[in-house]
Amino acid sequence: MKRILIVGGVAGGASAAARARRLSETAEIVMFERGEFVSFANCGLPYHIGGDIQDRSALLLQTPQSFKRRFNVDVRVFHDVIDIDKAGKTLLVRNLLTGEERCESYDQLLLSPGAAPIRPPFPGIDSPGVHTLRNIPDMDRILAALQRDDPRHVTVVGGGFIGLEMMEALHQRKLNVTLLELSDQVMAPVDREMANMLHARIREEGIDLRLRTGLSAIERQDGQPAQAASTGLRLTLSDGTRLDTDLLILAIGVKPETLLAAKAGLELGPRGGIKVDAGMRTSDPFIYAVGDAVEETDFVTGESVLIPLAGPANRQGRIAADNMLGRAETYKKTQGTAICKLFDLAVASTGLNEKRLLQLGLPFEKAYVHPGSHAGYYPGAHPVSLKLLFAPDGKIYGAQAIGKDGVDKRIDVLAVAQRAGLSVFDLQDLELTYAPPFGSAKDVINMAGFVASNHLKGDTLLCHAAEVQARHPHQKVLDVRNGPELDKLGRIPDALHIPLDELRGRLDELPRDKELLISCQVGLRGHVACRLLSQHGFKVKNLSGGFKTWQMAVME
Amino acid sequence: MKRILIVGGVAGGASAAARARRLSETAEIVMFERGEFVSFANCGLPYHIGGDIQDRSALLLQTPQSFKRRFNVDVRVFHDVIDIDKAGKTLLVRNLLTGEERCESYDQLLLSPGAAPIRPPFPGIDSPGVHTLRNIPDMDRILAALQRDDPRHVTVVGGGFIGLEMMEALHQRKLNVTLLELSDQVMAPVDREMANMLHARIREEGIDLRLRTGLSAIERQDGQPAQAASTGLRLTLSDGTRLDTDLLILAIGVKPETLLAAKAGLELGPRGGIKVDAGMRTSDPFIYAVGDAVEETDFVTGESVLIPLAGPANRQGRIAADNMLGRAETYKKTQGTAICKLFDLAVASTGLNEKRLLQLGLPFEKAYVHPGSHAGYYPGAHPVSLKLLFAPDGKIYGAQAIGKDGVDKRIDVLAVAQRAGLSVFDLQDLELTYAPPFGSAKDVINMAGFVASNHLKGDTLLCHAAEVQARHPHQKVLDVRNGPELDKLGRIPDALHIPLDELRGRLDELPRDKELLISCQVGLRGHVACRLLSQHGFKVKNLSGGFKTWQMAVME
Repeated sequence: MKRILIVGGVAGGASAAARARRLSETAEIVMFERGEFVSFANCGLPYHIGGDIQDRSALLLQTPQSFKRRFNVDVRVFHDVIDIDKAGKTLLVRNLLTGEERCESYDQLLLSPGAAPIRPPFPGIDSPGVHTLRNIPDMDRILAALQRDDPRHVTVVGGGFIGLEMMEALHQRKLNVTLLELSDQVMAPVDREMANMLHARIREEGIDLRLRTGLSAIERQDGQPAQAASTGLRLTLSDGTRLDTDLLILAIGVKPETLLAAKAGLELGPRGGIKVDAGMRTSDPFIYAVGDAVEETDFVTGESVLIPLAGPANRQGRIAADNMLGRAETYKKTQGTAICKLFDLAVASTGLNEKRLLQLGLPFEKAYVHPGSHAGYYPGAHPVSLKLLFAPDGKIYGAQAIGKDGVDKRIDVLAVAQRAGLSVFDLQDLELTYAPPFGSAKDVINMAGFVASNHLKGDTLLCHAAEVQARHPHQKVLDVRNGPELDKLGRIPDALHIPLDELRGRLDELPRDKELLISCQVGLRGHVACRLLSQHGFKVKNLSGGFKTWQMAVME
Repeated sequence: MKRILIVGGVAGGASAAARARRLSETAEIVMFERGEFVSFANCGLPYHIGGDIQDRSALLLQTPQSFKRRFNVDVRVFHDVIDIDKAGKTLLVRNLLTGEERCESYDQLLLSPGAAPIRPPFPGIDSPGVHTLRNIPDMDRILAALQRDDPRHVTVVGGGFIGLEMMEALHQRKLNVTLLELSDQVMAPVDREMANMLHARIREEGIDLRLRTGLSAIERQDGQPAQAASTGLRLTLSDGTRLDTDLLILAIGVKPETLLAAKAGLELGPRGGIKVDAGMRTSDPFIYAVGDAVEETDFVTGESVLIPLAGPANRQGRIAADNMLGRAETYKKTQGTAICKLFDLAVASTGLNEKRLLQLGLPFEKAYVHPGSHAGYYPGAHPVSLKLLFAPDGKIYGAQAIGKDGVDKRIDVLAVAQRAGLSVFDLQDLELTYAPPFGSAKDVINMAGFVASNHLKGDTLLCHAAEVQARHPHQKVLDVRNGPELDKLGRIPDALHIPLDELRGRLDELPRDKELLISCQVGLRGHVACRLLSQHGFKVKNLSGGFKTWQMAVME
């Protein structure tokens, strides 16, 4: 009888345990979990704090008892695995309730320890008012502090998924929130100009967002040592300013929990995660690892990356179980497809972003569109602002989108297109569901395909805000929107202005010795203008995404 | 200077005109439209009647004037093209306002005449209270009748897209609605068991849905000849019953407008539409045709099909323009991806359905799942009922889905997967956006992939309602739901019952000489039970989609 031990009982570990049992009724499966809870909804924690998920028990998807009943898995909570003896194929396990230590033998071992919130060694980091959010007890502590201390002001450090979700949750609870982000943007998976839409939305809610601002030190407001029960925290920020706050949430990222693996001499990868092959096997043939603790292979570049997301963890758990039980299955790499709700917006992405493409030195092109989520004449349509990144041959590198509706759908479609190896040319022909409440006869995705293809075929070359901002004397911006739009929405400084519908009759007003950078509101009329002007002998480029994208890009 | 004439100014024709101008500033482009309006939102007509789109002018996307200004296209409304002289490359065009006829020469001609509502020769078909809905004047007539006659009861004939949309629009206006459908289901693109969900929803609204019931004759209630102004209609139905109604909407389908093409000797296809090649060229090298009037090539089978949808028409218009102006572009076949809103439900499909696969005699498999549109612990999740059709080698044939949320997204993903040649095995690994408000770590699509792959790999063989209903004496149904579920939700007659979590301890209660057809609520626990039982030596199959699908399938 095969004995499978699993370290960690949340996404990857729990998936593997269930899958292993479905493949083998005879294996003995034991799952060790350091905490009290297995298979809880860790992605739901901020939403319970914010009140969207009212019932705490909704987060507890399985219990040790339910796991035992359904899957005959021996779940041992409050059990910390403290050592692996690879040669002897045993674990040293400590019962955290009794302190008792036991040796447990395995035929195969799966590590799913996850990733721990990063807690940099700031002075005062151990103050009672400083919280991270990883699990149910963390959540309970934050909720208890909210109830007990009735804080008025809270500071969230870090503008990633958890930081933004906690910012929104606490704002929803009517707290004054400051969000500190050391870099120049929140939501690192998207590029800066996209994130600027988020910054505007965050500030619109009255949240004190401070970019390029980190945390340097934490003191108590009353001058007592940070370790004593606290009545308030005084923060010193990276710019030297002080900030008094009642509660501090650290959400500056996670690091893979590799202590146990490293101690056992398992190979780590270049990013500090556990190294695994495509079958989720570590450097020891009897030990597998999955989830936030392992390095994955980037779908586009083939590099080792850390992608701490639930979807990959679940799939990896399944695949590790397959391989432990004699099936040769491989994990199909990670695109990093992700989404986050931000008030009434969604922000989502898949594949590589522009920052990464620049780091990698890969030649790339980009296109922006802002079509409606569905037909404009049917109520409730909202723009989907989409950025598509692609290679000069049309290969899809990645995509990002922000909007109130239909963002998940468009990034899902692009994630599938990317995975299937479709090009931007293929996006023109995708046949997607259309009825006025759901889409448009030419969907957002088709539009993005048209724009990218027109650029690559040379029909309408695109330019971007950076080129407009640093334009040469031989370049001139031509705005083809209507006058009232310019007055209402703003204009690019020093631009010529001829409305599109007057263009054919006013060609003699345009300089023939300059390259015209054409701007409209979202890029569609600019395309029509470019086609018109280029056939009349003008040298033109279309500002992709129009004034709207330009505004996002130049926003401070 | 090239002269391009376009017949028909809505989806395909208008797309072609705009595209042609973007490709050539020098071409002379003339668009003839029989009616008053070009480029109107024909998909929006029922929603204006129902009141969702309040402003009629929102439906008028372009005017002849706006087309002229922006695209320098000479739009001639109220102009009916009555003859084509292929040899002379001229059209005979009648001005419907003046009666004047003119000859217009072309270098290239595009036909985009669309499709007309079918009006079978029932006695009384020309009664004043009988309406079809194709264009703005049709809509205006229906609205005028509603206002003038204040009807109490309306009968809609035909349960396709327009029939359902009109049913809902009129129900929304507080009319009593009878919907007649000659076949045994509404919404022909999906299969019967899926349509049964729609039937239940329609009846829940209090609508008098009569399946397998057509219209035989229309008389006036007061016995006057049908042609006189009417105070009410008396319908004779195919089952002989009479039905008094105040207004009749005929929505029994459309037929391609091929009169002009046929008269000119252009080749028609086997389905009665204009025959075109992949470049949208008819049998005459100078004449192109697009939209509802042409036969398209089915993406899966390669057959000629009629797919009167807006998306294909728009894409074809673009491609025809490309080819007319010297670019070699091809239309990439049609999957028939479509969606319809039905009250709070959406129903969508792509590719082939089971009825068609049976007609074609193609070997196929099917799988049903009903996962939540997003994580169950986050509020607002609703089941997505999805049917996946696939070949024994895993090739995707088609998919259908119904639900309150996220239906468009899942069919879009499957439409892309099908078009890209992904298999059901690939669906397991698709990396889709996940956060609790938007999806699940294992999305609906992943789940469908798991179920289909498990079946094809022999891990958990599926069975379906038909097999359960016609089961052999050697087969026995085992329901593994909990007792309270059976009491509350109903049960399959003559089924054994052991809850899944008790199964391991009660194996000796199960017959070893029978094949067990396992049923749970949606198929997930059934899969776990199948894996468990098969490893204990039982012969098992899982009822795909569980009791929920069974109930849909056996519903009358």
